[in-house]
Amino acid sequence: MKAIVVDAEWAPRDGVDVPPEDAARRWAVNANQVYRSPRFLVETVEDPSGPGPNELIVQVGSCGICGSDVHMYETDSDGYMLLPYHMRCPVFSGHEFAGVVVEVGTEVKDFASGDLVTVEEIQWCGTCLACRGGYPNQCAHIEDLGFTINGGFAEFVKVPEKACWKLNSLLDRYGTPEQALEVGSMSEPASVVYEGMFTRAGGFKPGGAVVVFGAGPIGLAACALAAAAGASKVVCAETVADRRALAEACGADVSVDPAQASVGEVVADLTAGRGAAMVVEASGNFKAVMGSIEDCLGVGGKLSVIGMDARPATLNLIRHQLAAASVYGSVGHCGGWNFPNVIALMASGRIQMENAVTKRVALDGMVDALAGTSDRRDGKILVKPGQA
Amino acid sequence: MKAIVVDAEWAPRDGVDVPPEDAARRWAVNANQVYRSPRFLVETVEDPSGPGPNELIVQVGSCGICGSDVHMYETDSDGYMLLPYHMRCPVFSGHEFAGVVVEVGTEVKDFASGDLVTVEEIQWCGTCLACRGGYPNQCAHIEDLGFTINGGFAEFVKVPEKACWKLNSLLDRYGTPEQALEVGSMSEPASVVYEGMFTRAGGFKPGGAVVVFGAGPIGLAACALAAAAGASKVVCAETVADRRALAEACGADVSVDPAQASVGEVVADLTAGRGAAMVVEASGNFKAVMGSIEDCLGVGGKLSVIGMDARPATLNLIRHQLAAASVYGSVGHCGGWNFPNVIALMASGRIQMENAVTKRVALDGMVDALAGTSDRRDGKILVKPGQA
Amino acid sequence: MKAIVVDAEWAPRDGVDVPPEDAARRWAVNANQVYRSPRFLVETVEDPSGPGPNELIVQVGSCGICGSDVHMYETDSDGYMLLPYHMRCPVFSGHEFAGVVVEVGTEVKDFASGDLVTVEEIQWCGTCLACRGGYPNQCAHIEDLGFTINGGFAEFVKVPEKACWKLNSLLDRYGTPEQALEVGSMSEPASVVYEGMFTRAGGFKPGGAVVVFGAGPIGLAACALAAAAGASKVVCAETVADRRALAEACGADVSVDPAQASVGEVVADLTAGRGAAMVVEASGNFKAVMGSIEDCLGVGGKLSVIGMDARPATLNLIRHQLAAASVYGSVGHCGGWNFPNVIALMASGRIQMENAVTKRVALDGMVDALAGTSDRRDGKILVKPGQA
Amino acid sequence: MKAIVVDAEWAPRDGVDVPPEDAARRWAVNANQVYRSPRFLVETVEDPSGPGPNELIVQVGSCGICGSDVHMYETDSDGYMLLPYHMRCPVFSGHEFAGVVVEVGTEVKDFASGDLVTVEEIQWCGTCLACRGGYPNQCAHIEDLGFTINGGFAEFVKVPEKACWKLNSLLDRYGTPEQALEVGSMSEPASVVYEGMFTRAGGFKPGGAVVVFGAGPIGLAACALAAAAGASKVVCAETVADRRALAEACGADVSVDPAQASVGEVVADLTAGRGAAMVVEASGNFKAVMGSIEDCLGVGGKLSVIGMDARPATLNLIRHQLAAASVYGSVGHCGGWNFPNVIALMASGRIQMENAVTKRVALDGMVDALAGTSDRRDGKILVKPGQA
Repeated sequence: MKAIVVDAEWAPRDGVDVPPEDAARRWAVNANQVYRSPRFLVETVEDPSGPGPNELIVQVGSCGICGSDVHMYETDSDGYMLLPYHMRCPVFSGHEFAGVVVEVGTEVKDFASGDLVTVEEIQWCGTCLACRGGYPNQCAHIEDLGFTINGGFAEFVKVPEKACWKLNSLLDRYGTPEQALEVGSMSEPASVVYEGMFTRAGGFKPGGAVVVFGAGPIGLAACALAAAAGASKVVCAETVADRRALAEACGADVSVDPAQASVGEVVADLTAGRGAAMVVEASGNFKAVMGSIEDCLGVGGKLSVIGMDARPATLNLIRHQLAAASVYGSVGHCGGWNFPNVIALMASGRIQMENAVTKRVALDGMVDALAGTSDRRDGKILVKPGQA
Repeated sequence: MKAIVVDAEWAPRDGVDVPPEDAARRWAVNANQVYRSPRFLVETVEDPSGPGPNELIVQVGSCGICGSDVHMYETDSDGYMLLPYHMRCPVFSGHEFAGVVVEVGTEVKDFASGDLVTVEEIQWCGTCLACRGGYPNQCAHIEDLGFTINGGFAEFVKVPEKACWKLNSLLDRYGTPEQALEVGSMSEPASVVYEGMFTRAGGFKPGGAVVVFGAGPIGLAACALAAAAGASKVVCAETVADRRALAEACGADVSVDPAQASVGEVVADLTAGRGAAMVVEASGNFKAVMGSIEDCLGVGGKLSVIGMDARPATLNLIRHQLAAASVYGSVGHCGGWNFPNVIALMASGRIQMENAVTKRVALDGMVDALAGTSDRRDGKILVKPGQA
Repeated sequence: MKAIVVDAEWAPRDGVDVPPEDAARRWAVNANQVYRSPRFLVETVEDPSGPGPNELIVQVGSCGICGSDVHMYETDSDGYMLLPYHMRCPVFSGHEFAGVVVEVGTEVKDFASGDLVTVEEIQWCGTCLACRGGYPNQCAHIEDLGFTINGGFAEFVKVPEKACWKLNSLLDRYGTPEQALEVGSMSEPASVVYEGMFTRAGGFKPGGAVVVFGAGPIGLAACALAAAAGASKVVCAETVADRRALAEACGADVSVDPAQASVGEVVADLTAGRGAAMVVEASGNFKAVMGSIEDCLGVGGKLSVIGMDARPATLNLIRHQLAAASVYGSVGHCGGWNFPNVIALMASGRIQMENAVTKRVALDGMVDALAGTSDRRDGKILVKPGQA
Repeated sequence: MKAIVVDAEWAPRDGVDVPPEDAARRWAVNANQVYRSPRFLVETVEDPSGPGPNELIVQVGSCGICGSDVHMYETDSDGYMLLPYHMRCPVFSGHEFAGVVVEVGTEVKDFASGDLVTVEEIQWCGTCLACRGGYPNQCAHIEDLGFTINGGFAEFVKVPEKACWKLNSLLDRYGTPEQALEVGSMSEPASVVYEGMFTRAGGFKPGGAVVVFGAGPIGLAACALAAAAGASKVVCAETVADRRALAEACGADVSVDPAQASVGEVVADLTAGRGAAMVVEASGNFKAVMGSIEDCLGVGGKLSVIGMDARPATLNLIRHQLAAASVYGSVGHCGGWNFPNVIALMASGRIQMENAVTKRVALDGMVDALAGTSDRRDGKILVKPGQA
């Protein structure tokens, strides 16, 4: 089969202390600290071997390009991957995917060949303290499809049953498997947002206003989910005009260019001074947005931090105190019925993530598409491995 | 001005022990125990006197007929009011109303003549333990507009500032004050539902299914709010066909006649066996529906009990235990930003309560309209006092 | 090794429909419907075979007798087990146990020989919808140590790593492994209570009053946990004098015989009319206690239903509505960090479950001890398999 | 009567824009921006006039010195009050007080002469959006006893019924009114902490570890409340040795000098790597402690920010994301049954705030005591106005 193979040079920076067991298997806690000179190649590789008892083989119909894929591709001035997440090379990348089940292991109970499925990227152990406390995204023995084990920019992928969710319900709404899988492959980013807004931050009361900072794919899903969950107003702050238009297509009532207007003032006007019940940080640029975020937070307002940014943030906590505000850190998408709820929202038409798609390419075109994202104007780009 | 004056005979049943201070002012904790032979009359009465420092005078544009009004009008076999709630006669009834501010007291800060407003029925003291703990609907010194003090089936009503909410935002959506006040007068029943679903029960995660038992005005608001808050499916169980149609107009995806089909099976089919994330009891007939409700509850499901029924209910608690289910008792509409959130949902079009209206009458027609509700086929009936 | 072997006659009652796959392996969803004439015998049986990769062998130091064991032993008038829970005979019973690790599988990461451990009874799959939503106690493919697979009334037991929790911290407090394991074997019932009070019902605000109905082992743990969590008053209602004394030893400030005094009035007096913030049902006799429970519930009060009773309960829901009360069904002990939090409370001395113990017997004496529980006067009875 | 009269020069700094209505009544949103050269004097002043219908006159038995009083007294290099809170001079300061009711207004329902009471400092309006949403501490029309209206460093004070809480229950525990009022006067700071830990942050699950940064009076109350609410370990980080000893007297299991040891490592050791379930910021020095706080936060950990610090804080939000941590801003003490729960904890002996007291002075000694706090070694200093 064909797959996107990502490889890079294992070159821990000076002063970075890699545990020997990690070095032995080239497992990086933070790729930016050890992986240099990444290469993305479309290669012909072996199909995955037959499934273990609790595994499935999935033929991938659609796999989205994530900001993490971009950060795996792009390098800093030292030539290191930008990605501050874990990584083990070589690996088939891709972690936002959906496909058709083509083979199931002997112990698989709830899936059969022909089922449409999407798959959680994060592989949690179920045994560590975090997992057993209901925090699978904080698993102490985490592995990630598309980062440390083979993912979905490939014609086939082997995955455990406990990471799979059925998408058959999308077929009714979208008519064809191809379209169902396209939308279904966006379950993963939408579930990342769902984890942040609803599972970690506990949601907002319907009728409150929601402000989303950033209209990349994560911000677009946040706009859609905020509207679906009953925000009276969804406001999106984004500097790129193309992305503001996408935000409005996905569910924002109003989009604002923070370079042109005070987001806080816009929100105050739209809410008669009440402010936002929830703010979603989806820009990944904390320094740029935190002051504006604090301008938006109403009494009892919640800030859900979903965008990733390794740099420290400056918060005027006195403002959070006076507003009885709260801040929720979030990462990942597992648990909390995030995936089944997102899929149910897709199947019922309450969110329409197809409005976030700006490009579709075959597997052969994936690397070029990746190279083209440097201007950060796209919405979601979908790769179609099964049709390469 | 004209008003609907409700009077009845003070005749405590044998064995009912009325505290002397209540007897002195004819204040009934439970009208069904003391008030006999109710009379509803349209009378010409004095306008309310000038507002106190923190009060407003409102000219009522629309006032809905509530099930409680019906229970005030109907009697049991002994001739006592059906109403099991508190009451002090004579009183101008009506507690779901909206109107225009025509005069404000000297200390009123946030309202001016010309403002469109709706008013909380429940007058909480702010001083008792319940109020100071955030439970205004459980106020120990409660008084109720339309029950124990004069309400909204009248051309004018005097109300405290702290019970009022602005409806000016509805004017933008609905175009005319008349229509804005019609919709605005349904804030009260919608806030009763909001209190039950979101403030007491804590809402449901978007993407879950919601089942509503009963499609009277309370059930209709529950259908609308469930859809607005991101239910993947809203199912309404109701025996009366006309009301099932109203439920679908208000937001139900599916309506079921429980006499014809098992609601639990319908919900299981629609949710692939997952069951409901939330069930709303809005029938006021616990005996008839509780078994079906338990058939619907999914793992972690919540039951919000909003309908009123003085008779005991039979619960198979073992089913709640095995399902990790929970049950929330709710009454009232104050606090929790219920009103402002409901109004914001109306102003943004996320709920369209006008779809629940089946009849509009002048104040002179109110008593006939009330008499016509005995078949329980209507949705919301609106009375227009200001246009009598 | 020696073990308590429970066997019974597979004899589904007329009209009970057992799925063929359950019949084939004699797996009863509800033992009371199919298992007749139970027999408890101390037998010499094979030691468990070597551990699988993710398993451990534990030498059992202490195993408590649970009400479920009693219900497995006692029969109804038709000769069927009283137990309304699932069961597969023959089986080694016992599910509240602690012991020493004597062998670990090749993939076990966090345990070593010599560790003191306790073990979750409930074996959840991690793959079904309930498990992946954070509800392991509602697992669709549940198996239970001591009910459907071999448990802890045996010298050795084989268990999966993901069901184990370390008790090494108890050694510091209790001085000897024997005492640490005794207390540690009560982690399971205490975790059942913790699940009900804190994980399902969300706990109570410190300073509120807590009322516990029933002072069997579950009720005793509830008294201890309520005191540890900051109840201003812990009141225990129990008809048996010996158990009232145990309740006071475990943490109750006041115990009441509901046959002699109104529990509601006692609670009202103790709380200046405020009522209980939380009530714990631990009697398993819903009919007897529900009215008194409702007398106790204060505004915003929570009822955590932990006792098991297959018979329906009568609730005056209007009281729950007027009080803004809520009811939480609970079963099981997995998830929510129930076990590690309970163990931490034991290790810090915040709860002292040794005060609940009224008898200690060797494995040979287990059946006699079981037979002696018919008067329901004991607290916790501990069996010491490793010292038979 | 005698009272501590605080006055200062109204001198808005350059560039500070004071609204004319505030200037007219010398009402400062932020005292540090407008009030210069504060003076504290013991003066003989008029007794308060007779109570209004809903007011009480209280003879003050004990009034604590708060950090805010210190910041009112101390000045910055420009001679302005350090206090960044609101203020209106001249005023009788003192806002942590308890006393005996000596006169009640005609409409007062629940208090009588002779009752022991404490009083909420914050006077919320009950009418604004924040108040009606359950956020009285965020009241838009706030006034504060001891800051903008006369407070408790006086023999008598006039207060509204709705700000009062009975302390009669403390008499049983503490034996004399004097002692009951001493402890009762610490209800206010303890309620500030209760608001932060339990009402805003939602508490922690019993058995989790709690870390408190700072052992001034706020931190001491946090130690006591954490222990009472079932923390398995309470760790206090504090640089001053005297205050570390106080922390241990109030409930800390361990105290750490952050200048000598890594608080994060201490917590990791004590919790077997699990980290804190809750961290309480009570130092008011965000810059100094935030990194250590982040070292302590376990998976799902909560940070309750109660200390006040107008300077921005630097948060490594990526750490909060990876840990699924959350941050809660808190100010004030009203609502949420904070006061009655704190008083119930005092009356039941679950917290013993008398252990935080390091000095008792008469009203005449108050100013000297205040001057003596500059080394920040004291715990709580109590002033006894009724015994001057």
